[in-house]
Amino acid sequence: MSYDDKNIFAKILRGEIPCHRVYEDADTLAFMDVMPQSPGHLLVIPKTPSRNILDADPATLSKVIPIVQKLANAAKDAFDADGITVTQFNEPAAGQTVYHLHFHIIPRYEGAGLKPHSGQMEDHGVLAANAKKVVDALGA
Amino acid sequence: MSYDDKNIFAKILRGEIPCHRVYEDADTLAFMDVMPQSPGHLLVIPKTPSRNILDADPATLSKVIPIVQKLANAAKDAFDADGITVTQFNEPAAGQTVYHLHFHIIPRYEGAGLKPHSGQMEDHGVLAANAKKVVDALGA
Repeated sequence: MSYDDKNIFAKILRGEIPCHRVYEDADTLAFMDVMPQSPGHLLVIPKTPSRNILDADPATLSKVIPIVQKLANAAKDAFDADGITVTQFNEPAAGQTVYHLHFHIIPRYEGAGLKPHSGQMEDHGVLAANAKKVVDALGA
Repeated sequence: MSYDDKNIFAKILRGEIPCHRVYEDADTLAFMDVMPQSPGHLLVIPKTPSRNILDADPATLSKVIPIVQKLANAAKDAFDADGITVTQFNEPAAGQTVYHLHFHIIPRYEGAGLKPHSGQMEDHGVLAANAKKVVDALGA
């Protein structure tokens, strides 16, 4: 499968559409998922294009995963979560809906389930407030 | 949270209990999940102890994630899967049941759901046959 640079994350990386950004470095971008499965659900993506983990450059994976860790800890702190689920979907049968490699970081709470993946759009005021919490947790 | 070296994956790493091994190098071990959510469900763990991703050494994460990729591709080939779901659970609220960092690699098929996490024990003959398929795919 090839990489299609018209996917929504490629557009975010090019600045063609906005995102609720929480972290950026030379190799990586992190931003709030606009259809959160729980409050604080965020995404970490490498800037180097690949469709998913199957075709990624291993060196790119090695750079992005410590950032996944950093954001997982920040999300746990920011949302006072009991746990963090990390998911990464490859191909439609696995639930992938955007064809640029991404890791989901999903805050979890005792006794609370998750909303469906790619479910309901969250209010942008809520997303902006949650993004600020993550940024604050990263700076703490 | 601290690391308890009596967890089942620590015992597997020490050779105290067996596993259906599919891959091993100096830093990483991969083996079949004995309670697969779909046929071919396997686990990749770093040998360096950590409870989960939250307390892992970033350098350890950078070494393990290319092996997650390698095994994801091998599982896709071995089981002729349509996709691969990668999950990584941190703390009980996120579904973590063994407290040694591990990545789940779960083959997915169009129109097929998943069995529950930590559900039913698979027959060891089936697990051994599936392990052989992964080993063969890695060697191909």
